[in-house]
Amino acid sequence: MDATAETVNQIIRFVDLAGVLANAILGGIAARSARLDIVGFVILAVMSGLGGGLIRDTLLQQGPPVALTDPAYLGLAITGAMIAFFVPFRGIWSLRSLILMDALAVGCWAAVGAQKTLEAGLGWLPAIVMGIITAVGGGAVRDVMLLHVPRIFGGNTLYATSALVSSVEMVVLSKLGMPTLGSAVAMASGAVLSLLARRYG
Amino acid sequence: MDATAETVNQIIRFVDLAGVLANAILGGIAARSARLDIVGFVILAVMSGLGGGLIRDTLLQQGPPVALTDPAYLGLAITGAMIAFFVPFRGIWSLRSLILMDALAVGCWAAVGAQKTLEAGLGWLPAIVMGIITAVGGGAVRDVMLLHVPRIFGGNTLYATSALVSSVEMVVLSKLGMPTLGSAVAMASGAVLSLLARRYG
Amino acid sequence: MDATAETVNQIIRFVDLAGVLANAILGGIAARSARLDIVGFVILAVMSGLGGGLIRDTLLQQGPPVALTDPAYLGLAITGAMIAFFVPFRGIWSLRSLILMDALAVGCWAAVGAQKTLEAGLGWLPAIVMGIITAVGGGAVRDVMLLHVPRIFGGNTLYATSALVSSVEMVVLSKLGMPTLGSAVAMASGAVLSLLARRYG
Repeated sequence: MDATAETVNQIIRFVDLAGVLANAILGGIAARSARLDIVGFVILAVMSGLGGGLIRDTLLQQGPPVALTDPAYLGLAITGAMIAFFVPFRGIWSLRSLILMDALAVGCWAAVGAQKTLEAGLGWLPAIVMGIITAVGGGAVRDVMLLHVPRIFGGNTLYATSALVSSVEMVVLSKLGMPTLGSAVAMASGAVLSLLARRYG
Repeated sequence: MDATAETVNQIIRFVDLAGVLANAILGGIAARSARLDIVGFVILAVMSGLGGGLIRDTLLQQGPPVALTDPAYLGLAITGAMIAFFVPFRGIWSLRSLILMDALAVGCWAAVGAQKTLEAGLGWLPAIVMGIITAVGGGAVRDVMLLHVPRIFGGNTLYATSALVSSVEMVVLSKLGMPTLGSAVAMASGAVLSLLARRYG
Repeated sequence: MDATAETVNQIIRFVDLAGVLANAILGGIAARSARLDIVGFVILAVMSGLGGGLIRDTLLQQGPPVALTDPAYLGLAITGAMIAFFVPFRGIWSLRSLILMDALAVGCWAAVGAQKTLEAGLGWLPAIVMGIITAVGGGAVRDVMLLHVPRIFGGNTLYATSALVSSVEMVVLSKLGMPTLGSAVAMASGAVLSLLARRYG
């Protein structure tokens, strides 16, 4: 593995985990809106931050989900719940950084989901679908448990569209032998589309 | 395998895939009622057409779900989403053919689910339960995500009952060494009961 | 295995199965409130009694869920559905015994879920989370399918808290080489906390 690939892999891991933290905090904020106690914060944070990956790994059946075997995931999800519980997140700048991290995560999670599916020996179409599931699954489970219409349906489906675009990019570039470039492009376009979706969606 | 068994197997595959297409279209029609965009159509179509089999294969843990490994399934589910997106389905005859395909699929899916569970070495009671889950799971997930009371509960539970009857028939005839006859009987009775449920339920 | 451990193991199995029966009956009572027919009773009873274990075993990926391979589980879940269908459960004493069995089950299921996760080679944090999921997962799925706010969120989250406490106790005592004591303590504290939650929650 050359230096560029290693750098991109480190960026992927950083964005992946930052996405877990950001989504866990967003889950905690949803728990606050629903006036839950701290256990409710943790449950919603874990679902928001890890739900997509849990569904992906359960479907791929390559062993227990990475969210359970790699302690960083659960640790960050619970940290996110605690942050959301103790920090009010009323300032515009703290919300903006959350939204930015979440936007970066959409493309990153889609890329990771698509790549893992290809590595499991499955075809390009399942890879695209699993990329989307990885990116939007956690949020969908969180929304349904709170009896909200899932965000991927309600009003702002450009969110799911950006996961679709990132998954397609990842699959195409991975099949062309450029998975590293694929991850970078998927992450960048996912972020841009998600932010556009927030602004104009 | 004799000629009859081969013919029945081909019919099972045909009805199975026709059921995926019909249920994907029904998922797309539900997406239209909820005023979703094309990504919402695809998500609901995939869930309606493939959800039951995904749950079944995930629980049986015999490797990645057939809905991901056999390209016909995802291909037909997405085709169904596209058809529902572009075709209005207002005519009485187009709706009637959808309902007929859906009715045939209930018994077929129940039979396939029960048989796969027996082949995985599990007992007759899990086989019956997995037959029902395969037949009604996709629709239930679709309904819950749209925050509707699942059709298996709301008003028309004869739908689930016909899955139960088909599963029992399949398990009994399979245990008696007649899986081919079981599939045929399960499919026929599932269709008749489902159509009765639609008419008088 | 010494005599005490064997006795505790027998108590665990008894409480585990009693919990399945109690929760299946509670699922059936929920089906009655929603005016479902007998198939709806069975579906909700199976989900309430077996849902948590099904989610746990599906995530751990150690083969098909014990709820499918051990006939006692499905048998008791369906028995519970039948009991709820034919017995009105209006008397205060029958309800009280159900609540007691349910309270015992919370700690027992949390202990079993945490211990199984440790045995699968996973760490203490996933073990705690899986203990909670095992204890409250079935009820949460049942509630969401009926479009109710899950009981773990709505009004009475001490229910989830008692699952958390039992899981932590089990993990700590198991790591100290005392899994038998862990099960006993988890079961007792789960029961006490759940009953307090019902009374003062």
